[in-house]
Amino acid sequence: MTALAFNAFVMNTASHIQHGQWRRPDAQQVNFNDVNLWVDLARTLERGLFDAIFFADIVGVYGPLGGDYEVNAREGLQIPSNDPSVLLSALAVNTEHLGLAFTSSVLQAHPFDFARKVSTLDHISRGRVAWNIVTSSVENAARNFGLDQLTPHDERYAWAQEYVDVVYKLWEGSWDEGALLIDRARGVFADHNKIHKINHVGARYRVEGPHLSSPSPQRTPLLFQAGSSGAGRQFAAANAEGQFIITPNPTVAAELIRDTRRLAVAAGRRAEDIKFFQGMSFILGSTEAEVRRKEAEYDEHVSVDGFLAHHNYAVDRYGKPYPADTPLSAIKSEASQSILDWYAKSTPGKVPTVADLGRLTSRRGRIAGTPEQIADQLEQWQQAGIDGVNVINWHLPGSYEEFNEHLLPVLQKRGLAKREYRPGTLRQKLFGTDRINERHPAARYRGAFTPNTANSTVEFA
Amino acid sequence: MTALAFNAFVMNTASHIQHGQWRRPDAQQVNFNDVNLWVDLARTLERGLFDAIFFADIVGVYGPLGGDYEVNAREGLQIPSNDPSVLLSALAVNTEHLGLAFTSSVLQAHPFDFARKVSTLDHISRGRVAWNIVTSSVENAARNFGLDQLTPHDERYAWAQEYVDVVYKLWEGSWDEGALLIDRARGVFADHNKIHKINHVGARYRVEGPHLSSPSPQRTPLLFQAGSSGAGRQFAAANAEGQFIITPNPTVAAELIRDTRRLAVAAGRRAEDIKFFQGMSFILGSTEAEVRRKEAEYDEHVSVDGFLAHHNYAVDRYGKPYPADTPLSAIKSEASQSILDWYAKSTPGKVPTVADLGRLTSRRGRIAGTPEQIADQLEQWQQAGIDGVNVINWHLPGSYEEFNEHLLPVLQKRGLAKREYRPGTLRQKLFGTDRINERHPAARYRGAFTPNTANSTVEFA
Repeated sequence: MTALAFNAFVMNTASHIQHGQWRRPDAQQVNFNDVNLWVDLARTLERGLFDAIFFADIVGVYGPLGGDYEVNAREGLQIPSNDPSVLLSALAVNTEHLGLAFTSSVLQAHPFDFARKVSTLDHISRGRVAWNIVTSSVENAARNFGLDQLTPHDERYAWAQEYVDVVYKLWEGSWDEGALLIDRARGVFADHNKIHKINHVGARYRVEGPHLSSPSPQRTPLLFQAGSSGAGRQFAAANAEGQFIITPNPTVAAELIRDTRRLAVAAGRRAEDIKFFQGMSFILGSTEAEVRRKEAEYDEHVSVDGFLAHHNYAVDRYGKPYPADTPLSAIKSEASQSILDWYAKSTPGKVPTVADLGRLTSRRGRIAGTPEQIADQLEQWQQAGIDGVNVINWHLPGSYEEFNEHLLPVLQKRGLAKREYRPGTLRQKLFGTDRINERHPAARYRGAFTPNTANSTVEFA
Repeated sequence: MTALAFNAFVMNTASHIQHGQWRRPDAQQVNFNDVNLWVDLARTLERGLFDAIFFADIVGVYGPLGGDYEVNAREGLQIPSNDPSVLLSALAVNTEHLGLAFTSSVLQAHPFDFARKVSTLDHISRGRVAWNIVTSSVENAARNFGLDQLTPHDERYAWAQEYVDVVYKLWEGSWDEGALLIDRARGVFADHNKIHKINHVGARYRVEGPHLSSPSPQRTPLLFQAGSSGAGRQFAAANAEGQFIITPNPTVAAELIRDTRRLAVAAGRRAEDIKFFQGMSFILGSTEAEVRRKEAEYDEHVSVDGFLAHHNYAVDRYGKPYPADTPLSAIKSEASQSILDWYAKSTPGKVPTVADLGRLTSRRGRIAGTPEQIADQLEQWQQAGIDGVNVINWHLPGSYEEFNEHLLPVLQKRGLAKREYRPGTLRQKLFGTDRINERHPAARYRGAFTPNTANSTVEFA
């Protein structure tokens, strides 16, 4: 049995995924503005041998354009929220092994500035940074960054492709190995012959370079991606080292994983070059009775409105959820019709309502049981091909403290969780190498701007 | 005697201002990639009651377009360099009072993303963030961000004016006081009636909003600016709360300060709404003999090439400095002719050379003497109207350790330095108020997006 990898899936906000839970008296995520919440959590996660703290993010508010965001504000539904990237160095200096993964959209940062930010964080953390590549699918986000409307889906992935090309060039190609000398006696800090402009010219970006940061331990950060559409999966197959999935069961997971791995191989990579992380939230109890009691407790706090507004179904054109007792069959929603149908069928024998839809949504990825039962289920997921779990929380820091105290020991006994960290960078821990492997598209830019190398794209007179 | 304010003027790079000094055996700035250098320095500065650590930054390489950056790389002349903004939270969690000032150009970050980054940092640091507003005057920086060439000087300030308008709207106008409720019992996290879109539409930006972060302790960070040109001074007079100057003597300082304060009053502010920080590097000795010895030591390490390349004078069209013995009179440089003339005149009786120019440049802002002598000089500067000093270092952390140990006690005895921090935010410490004052242009956006207030720009049907 190989150990699974575990990330803590969080967001710098009060209500990330499990809407309504912030109202629990023990839910400290309401204090997300306070850095101490995160510093303490990072230490807790490192005690639990978590591979990474994985920050989701979004740069707009969910809902239709005319929406008044009443539900979003009331539920703390990812607003207010803070920038995760500038929080990471506080966590880096309070941990030694924990990976620091954050989400950044191609929409929000220029790739030249973004590449330097990541290199800086990778230096600060000694090689523990990961980037979750997203393209922003929220209308308000587009309008925060000067666009009239969301860029069409497939075009966003073409945009993302150029974006990663620019940052790959800066991370992998701009500085050759050995450029940094810090030679006091000769008075040479760096060798300019080994530092190159990239002169990128593309559809959206023109970037001269050179990269301003010297090579960080990982150069390219560990790359996560979460797209599950056609273009998204193609992009992940070509670029991701970790893919975040939320599938309803191991069978669907196995299919998705097999398919993406096939695409990766077709793109010149190996099946094992991508690790798959299923999103799961655990409800742990030492007895079945305790499990049922805790399930009921979480269910009681579920905000149906929060789930509906987050997922944009069963809301009217102002973003307002329909009344809880509205039968699903009465709702006309072009965007979400297939989901509505699926839910309507999944509860046969009664007329499903908007309230059912919200409650069912809250159960995505939920696994309840005693530690032994959960370990059994994780074995099945592992057999289906997952390499790790993105652990979704109900409340901070409690959900992860429970994981550490009650689930981890059982998983360790079963060989499903590691007993200690491997040394080195995040990529070293997960893939046994500091730098992205030679099959990855980023690697083709190594030496690409160095005159007279095999990879060189530079013509010299 | 009022105490002066003191900032430590640093950069996340090896050779910021005093080029060549990194070659000293005790110069730890060569380890700028290591976060521990900065954490330890921040603690040292807090022991010395520094008001802020002030990070300069640049997003390109100095020199002409065709330059090969040989000098820049050799001297570590602001390349490699790292992003200061993502370093700040590591310093915030290791200090309690120290202000955290960083430079960010309108060129590098979209104002929506930038505003959120700053709010996040202001939350993390409990109100200790300052922003040094710059427009980037380096050609390579423009070409890293998709421009063909540098935007003309005065147009850059028009750009900066729109940029600050956007971020002021987000910081001051998007969230009313009292919007954040965190009311568990009623299940209301925030009141959407007090959170507003800003719907900014301008020449360069369209930003819908709302701001995603809730109001941070200072809302608008403390604002620094350093422009000394006509447009730059006008901008500073209207917007800055701290202005960074490097003037050759107290007389010139007094003139500049008087002039800028007059402009501030003309813009509806008060003279005391801007504090002026003169850039100074100290050479401290307990005797005059020791001072002379240390001066010689620093002079010995000066990199003439570094100064010339940094300031872009006496370099040819490839960015290469002319040979050290070239007489200044032999150099044709349109851009720098007036500086060359000034230097040529300032050393009468000999034929000044390129080497003299470099060495003289290294002395800008230098004050050498015993602690008592330096205190005498600081009194003169204070009489000229400066409120504080941006202390330029020769080497990290030594220059600031010397300040703490030898200069600070004498300044305290004279009443020129404080004996303890005032409590509260950075603005509270410097101006006695957490929020930017009502005379500042940012304040006009308070309530601007709230229906039916005095400031309201929102028309309701």
